[in-house]
Amino acid sequence: MDIKTYWKQRQQAFEKALNLAMPKATLQPATLHKAMRYSLFAGGKRLRPILVLAAAESVGGKPLNAMPLACAVECIHTYSLIHDDLPCMDDDDLRRGMPTSHKVFGEGIAVLAGDALLTYAFQLAAQTKPVKRHNAAHYVNELAIGSGNQGMIAGQVVDLEGEGRKVTPKQLRYIHENKTAALITSSIRLGAMSANASDKQLATLTKFGQSLGLAFQVIDDILDITQTSEQLGKSAGKDLEAQKATYPAILGMAKAQAEAARLTKLAKDTIKSMGPKAAPLQAIAEYLLSRQN
Amino acid sequence: MDIKTYWKQRQQAFEKALNLAMPKATLQPATLHKAMRYSLFAGGKRLRPILVLAAAESVGGKPLNAMPLACAVECIHTYSLIHDDLPCMDDDDLRRGMPTSHKVFGEGIAVLAGDALLTYAFQLAAQTKPVKRHNAAHYVNELAIGSGNQGMIAGQVVDLEGEGRKVTPKQLRYIHENKTAALITSSIRLGAMSANASDKQLATLTKFGQSLGLAFQVIDDILDITQTSEQLGKSAGKDLEAQKATYPAILGMAKAQAEAARLTKLAKDTIKSMGPKAAPLQAIAEYLLSRQN
Repeated sequence: MDIKTYWKQRQQAFEKALNLAMPKATLQPATLHKAMRYSLFAGGKRLRPILVLAAAESVGGKPLNAMPLACAVECIHTYSLIHDDLPCMDDDDLRRGMPTSHKVFGEGIAVLAGDALLTYAFQLAAQTKPVKRHNAAHYVNELAIGSGNQGMIAGQVVDLEGEGRKVTPKQLRYIHENKTAALITSSIRLGAMSANASDKQLATLTKFGQSLGLAFQVIDDILDITQTSEQLGKSAGKDLEAQKATYPAILGMAKAQAEAARLTKLAKDTIKSMGPKAAPLQAIAEYLLSRQN
Repeated sequence: MDIKTYWKQRQQAFEKALNLAMPKATLQPATLHKAMRYSLFAGGKRLRPILVLAAAESVGGKPLNAMPLACAVECIHTYSLIHDDLPCMDDDDLRRGMPTSHKVFGEGIAVLAGDALLTYAFQLAAQTKPVKRHNAAHYVNELAIGSGNQGMIAGQVVDLEGEGRKVTPKQLRYIHENKTAALITSSIRLGAMSANASDKQLATLTKFGQSLGLAFQVIDDILDITQTSEQLGKSAGKDLEAQKATYPAILGMAKAQAEAARLTKLAKDTIKSMGPKAAPLQAIAEYLLSRQN
């Protein structure tokens, strides 16, 4: 399959759906809704929503039913970037080639726009059509677990605490598993759940998501070193500057690249048994390994 | 009825339930869970949870069924205080007589603890027992609407934008309706929903909540001027200092006090038709008018 065409088509459908699902920029208070949309429509790759849609397909579902959940995970991802870029966190001025939210709207509005996106994500999840095996309670619970105190936020806390300190490979894996892989895994699980996935299918896709999510973060750490800010659309070399623990920093570049390839193969092997319906997930895993930004 | 005894009993039951419902302080990452608990158990009045429980009673339900929702609204309220106290927002060092979250844990962890409480609130709402008329989708939706971009956060944005500017009485009402009354109204609606309230009952309680919520905020503004920091457990006189629009500032103290009394009477009259089961709600409204902190 042609992954670039697939990605483009899915992304276009998603952009339309997201635009319709979100409050208009003119809705009062306009500053808030402008800030929410500014970060949401800043040209992200839409990896997590596309994983939601591809996971729904992988168990025989229609991407359309999964769309509210695709929007929900993108709201979560975007809020996490807004808060992560704040001066009290990573202190970043540039994101996707544009000034970060607090640079444009001020820190107070950036905090609140993040809070509003986080809240709205759960509103979207609650509105997702129930299926035989799964309902709003399951969707909301899954989203909260992936993004909350035992998922994404746990990873961010340990990441923040680790800055400037010596981090062991075990701690680094914990950070990556939680900060990045948890929401990626939940995205995949949510897509499959909206298509009435069985427990067995969810277990397989969970393993796939965990390996894919780790691979994605190792590649991200590599690109932070090898690419320019222009290529990445965000400040490159930040990890070294902040003395962040990364795979290249701990293992060296060659071993980090080998680890990314190993994790990608592991992910792909995990879903071999799912057959041709999982071809988009296979192709996404391969594509992420070769990405340049 | 003896409102002080009622409040104490409900509060004690709530404290126990909240303690059980929240992740332990020793759970990894411990800093995050300590920060979540630090602000949650800092000695709040528990107004919103007690309204959840009293609203459940007002339509013939058992307070126990409403407990997860009581915990959820307190998580929302607490996260909003943590973020509101940040230097980029109200910049407050003192809350409930204790140093604010960012003073103890640093700004980064304070942002993340707020995010985690917000996320966990929806996890709790999703776990609430469905009844004939209402399920997790309704609970989550209600909580998101009360606390989100068309509720509490909308009020915070307009409040933040109004600092140091001339605010009209109409704008002030908008701020109060959203920043304070929206979550108070949702708390009451959620409690009633968990007890299988009808649309008619919800409509009556919504009106009650809107008047009570406005009254509560007018009283809060009055106390900010008339009480000392010691009496309030937070920095008094902050509104004047930040040139915040308040009812006493716009109408004068006497008219503000009359407005609080009028709104309280309006709230009480609204639920007269609900009979003796709504006696706790009546007593809470009366009690709030006479409070000194």
